[in-house]
Amino acid sequence: MAGKVYLIGAGPGDPDLLTLKALRLLQSAEVVVHDRLVSPEIMALTPAGALCVPVGKAAGFHSVPQDRINELLVEMARDGHRVVRLKGGDPLIFGRGSEEAEALAAAGIPYAYVPGITAAQGAACSTGVPLTHRGLATGVRYVTGHRAQDAALELDWQSLADPDTTLVVYMGAANMVEIAARLIAAGMPLDLPVLAVAHATTPRERRMLSDLARIGADLARQPMEAPVLFVIGRVAGLYETAALPLPQRQRGAHLRVVGHG
Amino acid sequence: MAGKVYLIGAGPGDPDLLTLKALRLLQSAEVVVHDRLVSPEIMALTPAGALCVPVGKAAGFHSVPQDRINELLVEMARDGHRVVRLKGGDPLIFGRGSEEAEALAAAGIPYAYVPGITAAQGAACSTGVPLTHRGLATGVRYVTGHRAQDAALELDWQSLADPDTTLVVYMGAANMVEIAARLIAAGMPLDLPVLAVAHATTPRERRMLSDLARIGADLARQPMEAPVLFVIGRVAGLYETAALPLPQRQRGAHLRVVGHG
Repeated sequence: MAGKVYLIGAGPGDPDLLTLKALRLLQSAEVVVHDRLVSPEIMALTPAGALCVPVGKAAGFHSVPQDRINELLVEMARDGHRVVRLKGGDPLIFGRGSEEAEALAAAGIPYAYVPGITAAQGAACSTGVPLTHRGLATGVRYVTGHRAQDAALELDWQSLADPDTTLVVYMGAANMVEIAARLIAAGMPLDLPVLAVAHATTPRERRMLSDLARIGADLARQPMEAPVLFVIGRVAGLYETAALPLPQRQRGAHLRVVGHG
Repeated sequence: MAGKVYLIGAGPGDPDLLTLKALRLLQSAEVVVHDRLVSPEIMALTPAGALCVPVGKAAGFHSVPQDRINELLVEMARDGHRVVRLKGGDPLIFGRGSEEAEALAAAGIPYAYVPGITAAQGAACSTGVPLTHRGLATGVRYVTGHRAQDAALELDWQSLADPDTTLVVYMGAANMVEIAARLIAAGMPLDLPVLAVAHATTPRERRMLSDLARIGADLARQPMEAPVLFVIGRVAGLYETAALPLPQRQRGAHLRVVGHG
């Protein structure tokens, strides 16, 4: 009998921000195929007997090619296992979950998605900086600042230079100097606030408030450990008045869900 | 002794998609001030003795003005209560959570945010249509299609007409004819796929696949019950091959979280 694959968002890092569904499926998994960036606090929730296979990217490690991840999920499910594919954030926002689903569908393996709190939402609730706010931002936009080796950043700068939209850049630390310069060239103000947040929602959370003109120099002087998220827009200017304290150690790692229905 | 206000995202509707933190705080609330659109399955999780105050918008009801909601939260907390302010989706994405936080801060009331799965993520994971996908969408953007009475839609159509970005329109059913026409005028193709999703992730979920040219007529012929979300972009074209079955009745309403740390 064929198994099933659950493509699950682990959220931003705090285990207390897992969904009930994600925690329950994780705790009944036989195999957990996980990104290296899924926080240690969340990995601590995997059941004792489960096989945990790290496949995702992290600085200093070679990552497993996407094709091999797809094969692995298919093989594990064909062996009859209940497989949890655990991704940081949400599986369908920069998570490549739908590519894995295509491979599973082609192989006739049943699958389902479980959403996760994406890093932008985690950072917003943790720092107190909203993604939309009346008079400051009518919408929000997520882009990735990562690029393949030697490739250009494939972003439409003119479209991105909308002062009424909060721009959140994922995986952008390495290219933030170029991103800031391009946004300025496209018409965004030099002093547009930028809030950089590393390890949002975990006890390792760090923050830096800057602006488009200074963010490159600020990062050079005070490097932040990946993953770093950049919130660019007038809402980031609220940080000076709305800032919430840094997260403390959570009791979330000691939670479990029980059904009594 | 002053109470505290928790500005909590209830997620898209399925109680199984609440975060562990949201459920725990909800179950220990003394007062729950909630939008009318928070699903009945989630409202069923409020503790027996809690006072539940509906304040948000729903068709056919007058909503409580924002100023009065702010006052109410301050008054309840001053009375020493542990107040949960429960919002559909996420408190900081079109949730006006930060406006309520400003009022609380001005009154010296402690508060905290808890993120929730936003409707776009719920709809994506439920339908199988991703928000980003290699070769189809490099990013995603959320806007609101709602407008104040007699006001124009305040959207930068030229910036929105980016075929490489998935556009998600919240609260847009009433204005979708205009939104589609403006996007076409700004250069988006007539046959750009549009997936409309009502009541995403609940047993009442309904979907309609259309395109920019036809969505107005399709909605007129087959109206959908609010809340409706529109996913506009090439990713919506995946629905024909990637579609997942409609959600069934969940056992989530019977879940509870216990701490054993």
